[in-house]
Amino acid sequence: IAKEVAKLLEMKAQLGEDEGKHKFVLKTPKGTRDYGPKQMAIRERVFNAITSCFKRHGAEVIDTPVFELKETLTGKYGEDSKLIYDLKDQGGELLSLRYDLTVPFARYLAMNKISNIKRYHIAKVYRRDNPAMTRGRYREFYQCDFDIAGQFDPMIPDAECLKIVHEILSDLQLGDFLIKVNDRRILDGMFAVCGVPDSKFRTICSSVDKLDKVPWEDVRSEMVGEKGLSPEAADGIGEYVQLHGGLELIERLLQDPKLSQNKLAKEGLGDMKLLFEYLTLFGITGKISFDLSLARGLDYYTGVIFEAVLLQQENEHVEEPLSVGSVAGGGRYDGLVGMFDPKGRKVPCVGVSIGIERIFSILEQRLEASEEKIRTTETQVLVASAQKKLLEERLKLISELWDAGIKAEMLYKKNPKLLNQLQYCEDTGIPLVAIVGEQELKDGVVRLRIVATREEVNVRRESLVEEIRIRTSQR
Amino acid sequence: IAKEVAKLLEMKAQLGEDEGKHKFVLKTPKGTRDYGPKQMAIRERVFNAITSCFKRHGAEVIDTPVFELKETLTGKYGEDSKLIYDLKDQGGELLSLRYDLTVPFARYLAMNKISNIKRYHIAKVYRRDNPAMTRGRYREFYQCDFDIAGQFDPMIPDAECLKIVHEILSDLQLGDFLIKVNDRRILDGMFAVCGVPDSKFRTICSSVDKLDKVPWEDVRSEMVGEKGLSPEAADGIGEYVQLHGGLELIERLLQDPKLSQNKLAKEGLGDMKLLFEYLTLFGITGKISFDLSLARGLDYYTGVIFEAVLLQQENEHVEEPLSVGSVAGGGRYDGLVGMFDPKGRKVPCVGVSIGIERIFSILEQRLEASEEKIRTTETQVLVASAQKKLLEERLKLISELWDAGIKAEMLYKKNPKLLNQLQYCEDTGIPLVAIVGEQELKDGVVRLRIVATREEVNVRRESLVEEIRIRTSQR
Repeated sequence: IAKEVAKLLEMKAQLGEDEGKHKFVLKTPKGTRDYGPKQMAIRERVFNAITSCFKRHGAEVIDTPVFELKETLTGKYGEDSKLIYDLKDQGGELLSLRYDLTVPFARYLAMNKISNIKRYHIAKVYRRDNPAMTRGRYREFYQCDFDIAGQFDPMIPDAECLKIVHEILSDLQLGDFLIKVNDRRILDGMFAVCGVPDSKFRTICSSVDKLDKVPWEDVRSEMVGEKGLSPEAADGIGEYVQLHGGLELIERLLQDPKLSQNKLAKEGLGDMKLLFEYLTLFGITGKISFDLSLARGLDYYTGVIFEAVLLQQENEHVEEPLSVGSVAGGGRYDGLVGMFDPKGRKVPCVGVSIGIERIFSILEQRLEASEEKIRTTETQVLVASAQKKLLEERLKLISELWDAGIKAEMLYKKNPKLLNQLQYCEDTGIPLVAIVGEQELKDGVVRLRIVATREEVNVRRESLVEEIRIRTSQR
Repeated sequence: IAKEVAKLLEMKAQLGEDEGKHKFVLKTPKGTRDYGPKQMAIRERVFNAITSCFKRHGAEVIDTPVFELKETLTGKYGEDSKLIYDLKDQGGELLSLRYDLTVPFARYLAMNKISNIKRYHIAKVYRRDNPAMTRGRYREFYQCDFDIAGQFDPMIPDAECLKIVHEILSDLQLGDFLIKVNDRRILDGMFAVCGVPDSKFRTICSSVDKLDKVPWEDVRSEMVGEKGLSPEAADGIGEYVQLHGGLELIERLLQDPKLSQNKLAKEGLGDMKLLFEYLTLFGITGKISFDLSLARGLDYYTGVIFEAVLLQQENEHVEEPLSVGSVAGGGRYDGLVGMFDPKGRKVPCVGVSIGIERIFSILEQRLEASEEKIRTTETQVLVASAQKKLLEERLKLISELWDAGIKAEMLYKKNPKLLNQLQYCEDTGIPLVAIVGEQELKDGVVRLRIVATREEVNVRRESLVEEIRIRTSQR
């Protein structure tokens, strides 16, 4: 029913659009948005937190084009390939907008024969998905990726990726969170011992992936009904995917009579144990859950996978904390670079992607609800005049301030009223006003007004820059 | 001949591509490039210089989607519209990649009914142009735009835009530069008094625009031969477009028997005089030239136009400084927002765009030629061990450092050799090594090695963070 309603609404929306087609529609494309100054101020705060974490971990930064050769993206995203934006064939190469930053990263490594790098990349990606803008799902959205490529001892880079997610989510103060961890090899081993035929691994995996949204019963009937899995196999999976825990669960599964017989599962569980040991040293196991229901959609993962979810606020009086959505995800993909390398040379990789739009949405809503007034400029001083005919003096003074590195503005009026100039400071949060007047010019001083206290002091012109610096130094 | 050679090379290149078509081509799309860590380090330096200038002038920042509705871009770029990238019609809206940041800005203002803003926007734009990558001409490239929108007293915002170009080009130390200034109204007035028919203003203007690349004789024969202008009119134009200078030239033209009779030219010259008075107060007229040959291609300019060029280095012993290319440009466009507003409500705008790719190219080449080693990370300390079996101790220590905000790395090996760890610091410029060993652990200290001097000191574990901060505080 929900699907039908959505379809009808979509049709209605399209009709609405068609009606207006004779006149120009003033809008951004579906699923995209502008960022105004206030949104940008929030965005920069979040980017700064994320970037400084990535830099703290010694990452370099790269950038790649927004579009790639179409064939670079072909065969990397499974079913989701239909969501890729293609460019019109205008002669020359066939191009598509990037769908994520991981595939361009792998292409970059193969093309430049890089076998060893730790890099981050913050950029927009594009998906022709059904937008849900209030919940932060867009067709154009930012990803913030951190990846470690190279042949290293097991689980050390993997543990660092989880540490990074933990640092960023703690730093941003989004409320309580949980990082679920699993391993593709454990999933595959589990499918094997439950009697899932090899050919059905992928499709059964994508059923399991739905467990965070729909109850087990529905997933089971999809497996048995739509996908033709035997009820016994489904029930076997059903028992495993309910499990989540920490080291003790890993130990128990290592002793599990069925799983312990499977080579892949054993490998995965052994590495999971190592991972948890490292996470214990990092002191972050409290927010990490080994969860056998975590599957993740993308085809290219080969080992550890993980996903961070925000938990509902405790003050909402729910009995059990419920997840309100994924804000970060990632995993190990040891085969992707090899798909691009002419000689199939492999470069093992593990990485994490921070889902920034959802975080923006939360912070934006929180800021709207709060009283906090966010400044959208960093201007330290407004150059103002108390009398008429002082435009030239204002221009001279502001030029001096700019050249000294002071952030300064003035009104673009020949003869602005002092009251309007002061009001502008109130509106925009400028803390100081440098007022020039006939008398001040004669005396070689500038009247400096502190907006918050309305205090005014005369400052000698040659000391003005220093005085402004001191008075705005806390920012 | 040059054209023919270029054509042949292009054909050869295409043949080469065709030959390889059966196998996968590992490349970025034509006219685009990846930015590796070194290029990104340069890019961030330049962006920081530009952003801090924009912020110094009190600008807010916005962002818009990388694609717009196709019709948003239609009819804004004249002949250059053929260079717009369209997206494939995959159902839904028809979309195009943005061609510049100015038209999306105007769309943003009209859509949000903003009549007053000072904003900057740094983002990539797209043109299906013939790339010349070594000279910094790409199909995907950055623009850094600063614009002032609003109804203000004449020439105050216009003067600030020129001050900004002056500040940025001085700050980046690219060598000597010149900012050419003209006004569309002066050009149109000049065409009128020379007897150019109204219908030919636009096309004659685009001929004049070529004067920075080809000599007057060629431009003249294009006007007379291809565009059917009378020889007398062409010669009239020829006399004017040779003129360049400062206030004295403006005064002279205000007395010019022909120009002074034309309303548009008189208005433009009056404003130009005012502009030069303001620029004199800013102390920057030394690098500004009122130049009647400056025309600029885009259709939407309505008043002042300007373009900054780098001058050839003096040490290359040329008699006259020659321009090696435009690095910034802009002007006044009072009609563009009105094209989007349903009621045609106008918002006067003036702005400047910094052509960053050319600046990158220059700085990249300069850096390659120099001995300077550019760091691509900010890592302060490498956490190392002198003996085997200390992975866990390294993990514990690095976690403490990260949590204290120290930028720290370690090698992802269980038992790395000390020599390899020290070599890593040499290679990447990490200034400090924190070495854990059996003895140090017993004594509650960490051995801190200063890479540059090879000096080593024992630091108590609880003082390590502080010690690292002090020793790396200059960065």
